[in-house]
Amino acid sequence: MAFSLIPKEEKFYELFTVQADAGVKAAAMFQDLVRNWDLESPLFDQLRDLEHEADITTHEIKDKLNRTFVTPFDREDIHALASELDDIVDIIQSISNRMRLYRISSCRPELAELVHVLAEASVAVQKAVSCFSSADKSRRVLDHCIEVNRLENEGDALLAKAIGNLFAGDTEPMEALKWDRCFEAVERGIDKCEEVAHTIEGILAKQG
Amino acid sequence: MAFSLIPKEEKFYELFTVQADAGVKAAAMFQDLVRNWDLESPLFDQLRDLEHEADITTHEIKDKLNRTFVTPFDREDIHALASELDDIVDIIQSISNRMRLYRISSCRPELAELVHVLAEASVAVQKAVSCFSSADKSRRVLDHCIEVNRLENEGDALLAKAIGNLFAGDTEPMEALKWDRCFEAVERGIDKCEEVAHTIEGILAKQG
Amino acid sequence: MAFSLIPKEEKFYELFTVQADAGVKAAAMFQDLVRNWDLESPLFDQLRDLEHEADITTHEIKDKLNRTFVTPFDREDIHALASELDDIVDIIQSISNRMRLYRISSCRPELAELVHVLAEASVAVQKAVSCFSSADKSRRVLDHCIEVNRLENEGDALLAKAIGNLFAGDTEPMEALKWDRCFEAVERGIDKCEEVAHTIEGILAKQG
Repeated sequence: MAFSLIPKEEKFYELFTVQADAGVKAAAMFQDLVRNWDLESPLFDQLRDLEHEADITTHEIKDKLNRTFVTPFDREDIHALASELDDIVDIIQSISNRMRLYRISSCRPELAELVHVLAEASVAVQKAVSCFSSADKSRRVLDHCIEVNRLENEGDALLAKAIGNLFAGDTEPMEALKWDRCFEAVERGIDKCEEVAHTIEGILAKQG
Repeated sequence: MAFSLIPKEEKFYELFTVQADAGVKAAAMFQDLVRNWDLESPLFDQLRDLEHEADITTHEIKDKLNRTFVTPFDREDIHALASELDDIVDIIQSISNRMRLYRISSCRPELAELVHVLAEASVAVQKAVSCFSSADKSRRVLDHCIEVNRLENEGDALLAKAIGNLFAGDTEPMEALKWDRCFEAVERGIDKCEEVAHTIEGILAKQG
Repeated sequence: MAFSLIPKEEKFYELFTVQADAGVKAAAMFQDLVRNWDLESPLFDQLRDLEHEADITTHEIKDKLNRTFVTPFDREDIHALASELDDIVDIIQSISNRMRLYRISSCRPELAELVHVLAEASVAVQKAVSCFSSADKSRRVLDHCIEVNRLENEGDALLAKAIGNLFAGDTEPMEALKWDRCFEAVERGIDKCEEVAHTIEGILAKQG
């Protein structure tokens, strides 16, 4: 019995890693989009495909959870972690799509700064998830979680600067409407990385 | 003992059906409002009354949940399903009220399209809930859940078209501000129908 | 064994009270800000410090929860209550910061009305939490919860009036964009107070 359970546990960790990898990939694609902004970029379709694939992984985890009696940690934590990792990809795909629909003609420099932080946060999340899945884990996992928290604070400061600039000058109302939403959506992506870090910290604390 | 438990289970299913019916009714009233848009329509008050009634049903479920030891399926799933079904009615009432406060003078055709999808999704949710409550259920329930997922994708495409049109022409900023929010609120309603479908799918998967 | 458990329970209640006190303090500071609106006010920094302190209390509760086997009521309810109480402070700090970034030059009177209701709701929440922590509790706790519900309805009506006024006159688009968001954020704060009341009502119902 124990023999058959170990692979199941490993399978959950494997799938979390697939999700975290998708987050890193999505953030990198979005960063590429922002750097070379072009409404005809093939990256929009690639991000949509990536988001669909990530959905399938997430459903696989939830399906496995519903069919597994013994899980490596609390069921509600598995559910939360899977949902939050999936949300990172969803949020990134959704912002890029919204920017296309808004027919953004060129990107504000503050966006590039925020997306840079988002990309770094997705990498820190990936490292946390990857260490978390390995044997001798708790020390390094926490280091990566702390890094996510640091990046979230950096993101907050950048958002404040971005919104401040937007409403300081003689920005057109349509511009303000669009960018207010875009900036905030990127911040929501960074916040989601922090939620993942908190969920992982909570799981480790329970395992004492 | 078993004898006394069955009615309790049935009661939960009955109340979910009442909630799902309220969702269908709210969506139909909203569709009627949008087709014959009139800031003085009595439908605004009727939607508010319906939303209050739906709240009472939701509290009845949660109260029953807190007082019942044996439930037909996991407590957290009952809680989630009741909250999500209630959210459908809340979102519909809230959008219609917001549109009135925005003094929308005439409805954009994209709104009618989105609300049509919302109405269809609420009917698919009602069918899923109703089959779910019956004996020989799982096959047909899943068919209705798949239909909700299909409608959610249709809604996403319509939202993209609606937002694209809004920011393509020479829309006034105030118009853009109002409609950006209204379109998105309808999409949130459709998303909530999909959440209900996912919750039901999850419950069925656990029951194996 | 029982001897050592009682202090632990009391500790949870103590920490909830610290959180609720922070909510009252944040709402009072925000009310002060709104009454004497000044972009250079030291209250912005004080609110940020208060929000950081409240975060530490919240982490203390979640940490304690992860390390405690016997809890005064269901783990998920402790988690929900701690998160919701923390959200009240977060929302208040976030609105005030956003208003500063928007360079709001003077406050609309409807904001003062909404913030007054928020301040009253935070006091009712504090009273509910404080009675909840005492021995002979359920009657008075429910009275305070009913008061929060009443205030939430009052807030809804005020929000409707505020949004209605905003879109009735010849408000500039930039003003409409800013105030639409600020009003709604205050309402979200009041809604959060209602969520706390619902969570407490649910805990009491379970304790029957």
